[in-house]
Amino acid sequence: MSKVDILITNGVVVTMDSKERVIDNGAVAITGDRIVDIGPSEKFSECRAGKIIDAKNGIIMPGLINTHTHAAMTCFRGLADDLHLMTWLNDFIFPAESKLNYEKVKTGALLACAEMILSGTTCFADMYLFEDAVAEAARQAGIRAVVGEVLYDFPSPSYGTIEEGFAYTENLIKKWEGDPLITVAVEPHSPYLCAPDLLTRAGDLANEYEVPLIIHVAETQTEVNTILESYGKTPIAHLAEIGVLSPLLLACHCVALTDKDIDLLASFDVKVSHNPESNMKLASGIAPVPQLMEAGVCVGLGTDGCTSNNNIDMFQEMDTAAKIHKVNTLDPTVMDAKTVLKMATTDAAKALGLDEVTGSLVPGKKADVIVIDTNKPHLTPMYNLHSHLVYAAGGNDVDTSVINGQVVMENRRLLTLDIAKVMADVNQVADEIKLSR
Amino acid sequence: MSKVDILITNGVVVTMDSKERVIDNGAVAITGDRIVDIGPSEKFSECRAGKIIDAKNGIIMPGLINTHTHAAMTCFRGLADDLHLMTWLNDFIFPAESKLNYEKVKTGALLACAEMILSGTTCFADMYLFEDAVAEAARQAGIRAVVGEVLYDFPSPSYGTIEEGFAYTENLIKKWEGDPLITVAVEPHSPYLCAPDLLTRAGDLANEYEVPLIIHVAETQTEVNTILESYGKTPIAHLAEIGVLSPLLLACHCVALTDKDIDLLASFDVKVSHNPESNMKLASGIAPVPQLMEAGVCVGLGTDGCTSNNNIDMFQEMDTAAKIHKVNTLDPTVMDAKTVLKMATTDAAKALGLDEVTGSLVPGKKADVIVIDTNKPHLTPMYNLHSHLVYAAGGNDVDTSVINGQVVMENRRLLTLDIAKVMADVNQVADEIKLSR
Repeated sequence: MSKVDILITNGVVVTMDSKERVIDNGAVAITGDRIVDIGPSEKFSECRAGKIIDAKNGIIMPGLINTHTHAAMTCFRGLADDLHLMTWLNDFIFPAESKLNYEKVKTGALLACAEMILSGTTCFADMYLFEDAVAEAARQAGIRAVVGEVLYDFPSPSYGTIEEGFAYTENLIKKWEGDPLITVAVEPHSPYLCAPDLLTRAGDLANEYEVPLIIHVAETQTEVNTILESYGKTPIAHLAEIGVLSPLLLACHCVALTDKDIDLLASFDVKVSHNPESNMKLASGIAPVPQLMEAGVCVGLGTDGCTSNNNIDMFQEMDTAAKIHKVNTLDPTVMDAKTVLKMATTDAAKALGLDEVTGSLVPGKKADVIVIDTNKPHLTPMYNLHSHLVYAAGGNDVDTSVINGQVVMENRRLLTLDIAKVMADVNQVADEIKLSR
Repeated sequence: MSKVDILITNGVVVTMDSKERVIDNGAVAITGDRIVDIGPSEKFSECRAGKIIDAKNGIIMPGLINTHTHAAMTCFRGLADDLHLMTWLNDFIFPAESKLNYEKVKTGALLACAEMILSGTTCFADMYLFEDAVAEAARQAGIRAVVGEVLYDFPSPSYGTIEEGFAYTENLIKKWEGDPLITVAVEPHSPYLCAPDLLTRAGDLANEYEVPLIIHVAETQTEVNTILESYGKTPIAHLAEIGVLSPLLLACHCVALTDKDIDLLASFDVKVSHNPESNMKLASGIAPVPQLMEAGVCVGLGTDGCTSNNNIDMFQEMDTAAKIHKVNTLDPTVMDAKTVLKMATTDAAKALGLDEVTGSLVPGKKADVIVIDTNKPHLTPMYNLHSHLVYAAGGNDVDTSVINGQVVMENRRLLTLDIAKVMADVNQVADEIKLSR
């Protein structure tokens, strides 16, 4: 390889490839939007690169993938915490959301994109209102995204009736088809806010376009009880019965599951998004992730929205994911660092149907690569790469980020957005919310 | 007040005083080692200050207090993770610790001091070997510390026999008496590694010098079972019976407690150090902190050593502490942000017997003050100060730190240590450990 666009060199390359290869003093070569080669740094000594990024003995790894968030909720970060779910929703979140519009969602989403890039996320899956604004924001920030308009039984402040909701979703799919960064998903909210008809129609639409189908499900035992009362079945069994379980389905949360639910998820190859910090903060419960994995279910990690977290730092989420299951099972060997790292990279990509595209450093895949600066007190010394990334590092240690072959952050400077303006815009949205309370 | 040494101004002052006062555009004035005044910034417009620190609309707050760590274990950060406790101790930690000496402990402790200052901690309580080295390191770094040599039934690589251990401790108390930063505590390891005689003698020594008595206790159910077998009592009841429970006692971990244990802790005014991340990572369990607080027990927060965490960032620990009890009790209102912030400031100070000295911003107290830079995407917007500090902020957001009236970090630059040299020294210790394996 005599000429490439970008060479990221002089780092420990954690490939997360199928052989879990780690290259001690290694380099990743990028041309256009793709990784074209990976190897020891010395292999590239004769290679001419349009741009050289020196990893300075840090870690070169795939960007993290956040499988579930509500990006624009940055506007409400810290608006309401430490409350019962219904107080939180009815007195704070729903009233605030009723004032949203395209512009405000775009503003909030831009801030989320900035925050995600700055903390090492290179791809996220979103569910919210005015999702075209989220797609536009992701495009502007240069971050990969799976977006989907939330569908439910009642009228939406974004699209109006559910008929219009399906039309909105289908238009969104068509508008963004073939886009290098944006994938559109079909996203019914949940079994408790969506009638069976809505759910099967959503499933059909996802099948028709072969796009992901994303839903909240079994987030709390209360929800399970509600669905049991209405349909005589657990939410997962209910979805199975109406024909919505499929390999395209990403089931978010999956906290309150029965053994039979887990078998169903496994047998239909449903993917799960695990959001431990949100589940902890909202007191929802602890998802049986070790059991899901044991059953062969693909589980990706997610932060949920930053009203229930309250940041969207995937490094912190990895740390929590690794620890919460140890204490929950009283077994310190479950959810080891490597497993958790996979949940945030390769398995997350698979959960979103993007495993051919991103999630690991492999020639031919899109170039979604981050560089970690390990020359810091809290990252000294280093014995084990994987545990270092999960237990010691934070989003702030990410120095440089390349997404789809574009350098979006370098030396912690965001190159795609005017971050001061984005922050000022969100502060203005927050001021309106404060005034209206 | 016409003249002060340091004026920290233009910030939201979160005092954590008894009235929980927050001053919107406020300032903290420092002369010598003490806070001399606090008020709106405009009050100080005529005040001449030797040094002005502009908080730039960020947050001015008391430095965080880590009530339990093993600072020098930074040398082993990431050496062994995701293992059963006995494998971890016998195959990794004990062999590594057998190679420690004064110099290595000082080196590791210096790194820990750097990491703590950089993440907003201004005071820590330590238990380890060669604690004089830890005191010297803290003094050099300019951080407040409570240090104590670990005492147990078998010979120590540091002091030798237990007789020598008590002599070492008493000498340490005398050496550091009156020091502005260092307090020496008496620190028997635990009821399972210390015979009753050792424990009562340790208690007597603490009483004689009126210094804190610090111990690990009820960290796991296994430990409780061991003590039940040996003494027919829970560890707390055992300590009560031999007369070791007292207001000077700081009981670290307290994971596996009975209701009666909680009553005993409350009635003897024993303080508790809560270390949620370590308890999660080692799969020890979840301490009943809401119950302890309900019973009136003073609980301070701690990180434990960074082999079981693997960083010593108190902001991350606050976030985890707030969340773990919500999910454990399935009640999102327990351990609200303000309560957790107290656990890391005022209550932590009280737990260490330092409540007259530090833990809140009050004129007359020592000046242990940090400034948080809130002009960042993940700290935008801001609705609620306390929840912002607990759920959204990280140690990396701490911009400036003053301890005992000395500026030890400014604009994230550590002023008291040559951090590159400290990191190089620890890396050398780690290289030796790797070679010897």
